Amino acid sequence: MGIIIESIKIRKLKYWRFYMKKFNLAILGPMGSVGQEILKILNERNLPINQLKLLATKKYEGIEIVICGNKYTVEEITDESFNYIDILFMAVSAETSKIYTPIAVRKGVFVIDNSSAYRMDVDVPLVIPEINPDDIMENKGIIANPNCSTIIALTALNELNKFSPITKIIASTYQAVSGAGKEGVLELEEQMGKHVNGLEITPKIFTSRILHNVIPHIDNFTDNGYTLEEMKMVNESKKILHNDSIEITCTSVRVPVLRSHSISIFIETKEPILVDKAKELLSNTEGVRLMDDIDNMIYPTPLESTDKDDIFVGRVRKDIRSNGLNLWCCGDQIRKGAATNAVQIAELLISKTLHSREC
Amino acid sequence: MGIIIESIKIRKLKYWRFYMKKFNLAILGPMGSVGQEILKILNERNLPINQLKLLATKKYEGIEIVICGNKYTVEEITDESFNYIDILFMAVSAETSKIYTPIAVRKGVFVIDNSSAYRMDVDVPLVIPEINPDDIMENKGIIANPNCSTIIALTALNELNKFSPITKIIASTYQAVSGAGKEGVLELEEQMGKHVNGLEITPKIFTSRILHNVIPHIDNFTDNGYTLEEMKMVNESKKILHNDSIEITCTSVRVPVLRSHSISIFIETKEPILVDKAKELLSNTEGVRLMDDIDNMIYPTPLESTDKDDIFVGRVRKDIRSNGLNLWCCGDQIRKGAATNAVQIAELLISKTLHSREC
Repeated sequence: MGIIIESIKIRKLKYWRFYMKKFNLAILGPMGSVGQEILKILNERNLPINQLKLLATKKYEGIEIVICGNKYTVEEITDESFNYIDILFMAVSAETSKIYTPIAVRKGVFVIDNSSAYRMDVDVPLVIPEINPDDIMENKGIIANPNCSTIIALTALNELNKFSPITKIIASTYQAVSGAGKEGVLELEEQMGKHVNGLEITPKIFTSRILHNVIPHIDNFTDNGYTLEEMKMVNESKKILHNDSIEITCTSVRVPVLRSHSISIFIETKEPILVDKAKELLSNTEGVRLMDDIDNMIYPTPLESTDKDDIFVGRVRKDIRSNGLNLWCCGDQIRKGAATNAVQIAELLISKTLHSREC
Repeated sequence: MGIIIESIKIRKLKYWRFYMKKFNLAILGPMGSVGQEILKILNERNLPINQLKLLATKKYEGIEIVICGNKYTVEEITDESFNYIDILFMAVSAETSKIYTPIAVRKGVFVIDNSSAYRMDVDVPLVIPEINPDDIMENKGIIANPNCSTIIALTALNELNKFSPITKIIASTYQAVSGAGKEGVLELEEQMGKHVNGLEITPKIFTSRILHNVIPHIDNFTDNGYTLEEMKMVNESKKILHNDSIEITCTSVRVPVLRSHSISIFIETKEPILVDKAKELLSNTEGVRLMDDIDNMIYPTPLESTDKDDIFVGRVRKDIRSNGLNLWCCGDQIRKGAATNAVQIAELLISKTLHSREC
């Protein structure tokens, strides 16, 4: 992709198309979990949309989707599909993104890419709107949406990090099967049906049976023994926080939860943060809801955070070391961990442009 | 308990009863998960048993249990039950242990207590036979069996710690429902049946629904915001390792797994340990089986470690820091995490005494 994208001049957001008041949006991959959620969220939020196209391969052509009283018909993707599109949500695999993103960008479309294809490219902003909104200002037509666990963890840690820079993050994740797409959900549901009926269970998309099990393996392994999923947390966090010196390590684990990822996080900060101060900061963090009242057994679980946009944080505790804190967070990885963040990026693109127009 | 126990003189293991060749054993709580597993393991292993009594409250009196062709009948516990017993496995709650342990000890019985009642008492050895066997030598009649997650983590780390002392442990657990006893298993199975049949689910023993969920709360909360379960890992580890300066922090989480706990562990050691060296040490650790071959997708899961005595370790990776290592371990918390460790302590009591007799 490098060559194609790099040949395009940096586009400032005063781009001509944004002088219009309403925008033409498209979703590539509207039949997947993230694509469907983006469609839902676009209908929930008040974006200035002129037209919204759903693009997919031929096999989905003609499928009708009704959301909030609006009917959409899936169109087959062709070379002409990107004409007159302002913002394209790329809700497909990294491989597919690498095929279509350069084509869309060449046609002047802003691509918000949900895949990992361009996240670490130096000229592609990787954006969590609550954390590094200004990063979108200089781009070559692509804004990358970070990895779900990275979004969940960093959104939770944002105000703590501003108060006293985080020097170390040690994360262990508890990731839902829907992180592996609809097939992951089907696999868990199917295994549960088989178990209840006493039938034999054979894993398909997961490497082991996921019912009554946890699997310390998400995405492919890399040369250093970490998985790609774990290295996304390491590398993407540094890019989003503009901090190469932060020490991050992660163990990513699949658990038999349908939706919403949980993360057990240990952090060290430059200056110690007292628990009460940490709770105050968390309760004032944009996109975060503090659920930490152990006297009343209040702490987040993935079930409670399902279908919500907020990241839920609890179990805030001081480590033995004066500058260490433990916390537990849960977030819907399809909403804030993917679709909501992507729509927020679109809103940011639009509002920053509208704002600059008014100046 | 303190007063009663402290009044008894320290018993060296050259105690008269051990001059006999075969021993009278008893299990208090033979109907619970751990009690039943102790019975099973005593039948699997070659202990010099003269008589094995199963003691319980009146409601279980007369129940017959057949294991390995041996039939046992549960007896009601009375003040006379402990007469002529050499070793008593206490497989009951801390509250019940506090009632019966002092009575048994006064009758000259060695109690191997599986509960948390006496673990942190200064004159009660807390023993993992692979790690601190000699600690059993000075006792006042009680040997405490550590918390399950503590046994699993420390057994895994034993040779690493001997090679280069561990200075820091950060653990996040993935604990099976059977850690909450048979009721925990029943609750998950019942919720699964209800889910498959579309019925409403109401949590009973867990604070939230456990099906399709994970709950960051095991045992009661303490004043510092940690749970008792988390503090057991912290305090018991220091006692077992005879190391008060080791920094330990833990987040204990219940997951919808039937049996076998998993732990994501980050350690820092005094001197760095290279990954290859760590794997060599782990493959030579007593009670540990290294399962770490990511090229062939080999790593432990709780399902694979169920019903095994070994602790399975994999995903060994170097942290960014030169003295940090990540690893993932799974162990059957009812076997090595409880019953097997208790039987190993009994074996140790017997063999150390038999050995001293031969001298």
